Amino acid sequence: MKPIQAMRVGLLGIGTVGGGTYNVLTRNAEEITRRAGRPIEITVVADKDVARAKELTGGKVKVTDDAFAVVTDPNVDIVIELIGGYGVAKELVLKAIENGKHVITANKALLAVHGTEIFAKAQEKGVMVAFEAAVAGGIPIIKAVREGLSANRIQWVAGIINGTTNFILSEMRDKGLPFADVLKEAQRLGYAEADPTFDVEGVDAAHKITLLSSLAFGIPVQFDKAHIEGISKLDATDIKYAEQLGYRIKLLGITRRRDNGIELRVHPTLVPSKRLIANVEGAMNAVLVQADAVGSTLYYGKGAGAEPTASAVIADVVDVTRLSTADPENRVPHLAFQPDALANLPILPIGETLCGNYLRLRVADQPGVLAEITRILADRNISIDALLQREPEEGEDQTDLIILTHVCREQDVLNAMDVIGKLPVVKGAVTRLRLENLQ
Amino acid sequence: MKPIQAMRVGLLGIGTVGGGTYNVLTRNAEEITRRAGRPIEITVVADKDVARAKELTGGKVKVTDDAFAVVTDPNVDIVIELIGGYGVAKELVLKAIENGKHVITANKALLAVHGTEIFAKAQEKGVMVAFEAAVAGGIPIIKAVREGLSANRIQWVAGIINGTTNFILSEMRDKGLPFADVLKEAQRLGYAEADPTFDVEGVDAAHKITLLSSLAFGIPVQFDKAHIEGISKLDATDIKYAEQLGYRIKLLGITRRRDNGIELRVHPTLVPSKRLIANVEGAMNAVLVQADAVGSTLYYGKGAGAEPTASAVIADVVDVTRLSTADPENRVPHLAFQPDALANLPILPIGETLCGNYLRLRVADQPGVLAEITRILADRNISIDALLQREPEEGEDQTDLIILTHVCREQDVLNAMDVIGKLPVVKGAVTRLRLENLQ
Repeated sequence: MKPIQAMRVGLLGIGTVGGGTYNVLTRNAEEITRRAGRPIEITVVADKDVARAKELTGGKVKVTDDAFAVVTDPNVDIVIELIGGYGVAKELVLKAIENGKHVITANKALLAVHGTEIFAKAQEKGVMVAFEAAVAGGIPIIKAVREGLSANRIQWVAGIINGTTNFILSEMRDKGLPFADVLKEAQRLGYAEADPTFDVEGVDAAHKITLLSSLAFGIPVQFDKAHIEGISKLDATDIKYAEQLGYRIKLLGITRRRDNGIELRVHPTLVPSKRLIANVEGAMNAVLVQADAVGSTLYYGKGAGAEPTASAVIADVVDVTRLSTADPENRVPHLAFQPDALANLPILPIGETLCGNYLRLRVADQPGVLAEITRILADRNISIDALLQREPEEGEDQTDLIILTHVCREQDVLNAMDVIGKLPVVKGAVTRLRLENLQ
Repeated sequence: MKPIQAMRVGLLGIGTVGGGTYNVLTRNAEEITRRAGRPIEITVVADKDVARAKELTGGKVKVTDDAFAVVTDPNVDIVIELIGGYGVAKELVLKAIENGKHVITANKALLAVHGTEIFAKAQEKGVMVAFEAAVAGGIPIIKAVREGLSANRIQWVAGIINGTTNFILSEMRDKGLPFADVLKEAQRLGYAEADPTFDVEGVDAAHKITLLSSLAFGIPVQFDKAHIEGISKLDATDIKYAEQLGYRIKLLGITRRRDNGIELRVHPTLVPSKRLIANVEGAMNAVLVQADAVGSTLYYGKGAGAEPTASAVIADVVDVTRLSTADPENRVPHLAFQPDALANLPILPIGETLCGNYLRLRVADQPGVLAEITRILADRNISIDALLQREPEEGEDQTDLIILTHVCREQDVLNAMDVIGKLPVVKGAVTRLRLENLQ
């Protein structure tokens, strides 16, 4: 029998996820070794806060403040990058790859923006870059799309992939409170950061759906082409109207294959209340995948937090450990498709995308208003799926008109909104949200 | 550049799933090759009905009625076994392994009963036996448990893993109809077989939960120790009462780690209505996994049908293709844990398992009845979570009493039911169902 050699891991960053990774690897060492066939050993930790890192690791592991020493350390086989951001993290990842280390990262921003460069370098050096933790935390969604559904032509992916915004939307609906109040509460509870921009404006979700889009359709990562809208402008009124019409509003990352290209977008979306994904509440994540052979599959779990994210990081460590001795040509490709077989499908400009719509208008309570508005929609090939018109409140001469449209072209809707917004009978701006039936 | 050699597949059985596999492999050949890095080619099909097989494959593939010729064919790298059952399928699988072929199978019955022998033989011969299609059809649940959650100490798995029974239970609830009527409808629609015993009596679900139990806890397959109850005796009355108390009844396969061993059981189960898994309707499947690092994750999709099952079969083909050149010691182990690291945890006898309970009793409408019954429960450490007592119908002197218990020991409940059933104030048998909060 060959002596069994431990896999030696260098950990860059021992904050929330790094600490969770250290703890889970230590606590479940026996179980993980029984699976991997080899012990996994963190041999060095790099963190700016050396004192804290020493405390967390109880003096059992070498600690340094020099991350660059780790990525060049000949006693490290795998580098786990948990620093985040595009700056030094990128340098470290590239340096690790150059030095023949496999890299595991939870850094969706880095991969969504610089993935092409990083994967090409890894390919050249014959090492793996694994990133299960970059999307939907502990849910093994990358593995599912990349390997579990490999028989399929995937048609679309739609996901609740940002826990902060799903928590805020759940609370807005439950308590009927406006966005700003709920955001404050979320910050107090630790569900939102002090600067919540990346989460609430949809940037984080866009990083993740960019990665899922590449895995689903075999295209290079193209974060710069994603269309991104967050929830900060969402009005509690629309959550209430949506509910009355049988819908819930979720911030979805959506990517869909069309004949002429790929849709890649993040925005608040009306989803029929009876869909499982509409019932994913609080900070939970869920990803729905539609594919030609398997149909719909859904994956649900915790999308963030120390140990759920650590679960994904360590699953990658086990995978990389198993595959590290395999011929690089027979490993699972980084983006699910062989690097020389990526497709040249364009990301469609948002005006070319297809979607259902929810329109809320403040209209004068007088004859002919509905005829005028529906004519403008019909002229632009926008057909109406449902209408809700309230009686005006006592003493008012205006009322809310809600229109749900069937799937139509985005640019047609924008044009119609422009014309409708200028009608004398329409008071104030037209509110528009997108709607997906997800069937 | 090396010439790329196609992976040569021999298909045993071209019925529903075999036909689906052939069709999906043909239709998505380009996409699958882009993922696998090598073409996958069905080189020979064996089926008793040679004429039909020839028709389905349009004369493009060699067809034979001799399955044994396929498993010894030097031009076959992977054998897909879709014959089913324990008889000839077992012989063929073992023969294929002996001849150095990798085997992919959807045959849960075979693996749940003879898995230990088959996996040992595969280990000895250095080949893979993959079986994603054996559990929950197209949902990549085996991959998720075996690889996606490898960081975790798994605590329990609970699944709706039989579509026929979930369809029947959904219809019984929706329409308030008795089991026998709905079964007939399910047979007419093709959701239930002419002889539905394996499905409705829970045997199929038990095969599947046996496999999931081994993957979750690293124990040998032990179908013979599973406790199995089906839905054929389920009364529509109990579905109605459960609903009133905030629960739905699902046929769950459950396996749970306890201090003294593993629970392995299939039975109708009350589940809180607000859980996502309680809202899985019709023939859909879903598996909920509780693990220490990641928490709860859920996997949802189609559990049967030609193409969903084919999706799982082909995902295995791609995996095996990728790993076929890898060192056998570094491949993913058949049961998630290295074969020399399987645990010796016993499957607990049903009397030792722990569960909540739903009890329905027909009782005399007279003072002291409740006191007597609750005393019997308390004496056996069974504490009550909820009670529902109906007023007797006009002119009757009996009524239904429903009791929900907290988690308690199965044998204590059986003993209590025995004593309660003999009370003069209790009319007829005590109906008991199990209850799981799944939190």
